[in-house]
Amino acid sequence: MADECIFCKIIKGEIPAAKVYEDELILAFLDINPVSEGHCLLVPKDHYDRLDDCPVDTIAAIGSKMGRIAKAIVAATNAEGYNVLNNNGRCAGQLIGHVHFHIIPRRRGDGIFIPWPSKEYPPGRAEELIQKIIQNLL
Amino acid sequence: MADECIFCKIIKGEIPAAKVYEDELILAFLDINPVSEGHCLLVPKDHYDRLDDCPVDTIAAIGSKMGRIAKAIVAATNAEGYNVLNNNGRCAGQLIGHVHFHIIPRRRGDGIFIPWPSKEYPPGRAEELIQKIIQNLL
Repeated sequence: MADECIFCKIIKGEIPAAKVYEDELILAFLDINPVSEGHCLLVPKDHYDRLDDCPVDTIAAIGSKMGRIAKAIVAATNAEGYNVLNNNGRCAGQLIGHVHFHIIPRRRGDGIFIPWPSKEYPPGRAEELIQKIIQNLL
Repeated sequence: MADECIFCKIIKGEIPAAKVYEDELILAFLDINPVSEGHCLLVPKDHYDRLDDCPVDTIAAIGSKMGRIAKAIVAATNAEGYNVLNNNGRCAGQLIGHVHFHIIPRRRGDGIFIPWPSKEYPPGRAEELIQKIIQNLL
């Protein structure tokens, strides 16, 4: 637990939250500022800043419930699909420094996360990147 | 394996891909149309359309490597953070019907996924949604 972390306070019951799922390891609750109706956050109860700080067991615990919770949110909100989004670092949109997964119900034409700003690699650049990533995985 | 699935073809080696990580259960490779330099896709080798179709073991296998691969991508691209994004359903931006997680390196001011279109719930609506989601989890 981190003293000043708002998600740790929710987990400890010091701040109320609209909980939809809870077990020993994880908690899911409605995001108070939803991108779409039913937008939830899924968090581990232990405090880790970012995904790459989490022990493997913690991510497995989150992953093992993610699909089931997403399916329930989609059914409850008559959505057609959903995004699972995990932001790491302020530059990536992470506002609370306690690892969390957004589950965002989606409907056709809702205009969320449009456009998708994809590009192409200049010649040779992809090959350079692959080698660098592989070296960092060793 | 699904015959017409482009990711299954990559997994079987019938289509080339810029692979950065591979084990018995999962494969990670550069997205050919990156949102940012080093943008990778992480997929299970078995074919499932959506996250909620995946067996728990499959998601755990993905989750167990996600942080490590993301950290390597961030280091290789001198990024400051990253998003993990999984789209389910065409309405949510899923273009290939084989479950996949985008790992997108991020840098301050890169302008990706801005704005974040959040709203507030009208009075009583959050409480209604919680009950519906909980019922769908039973």
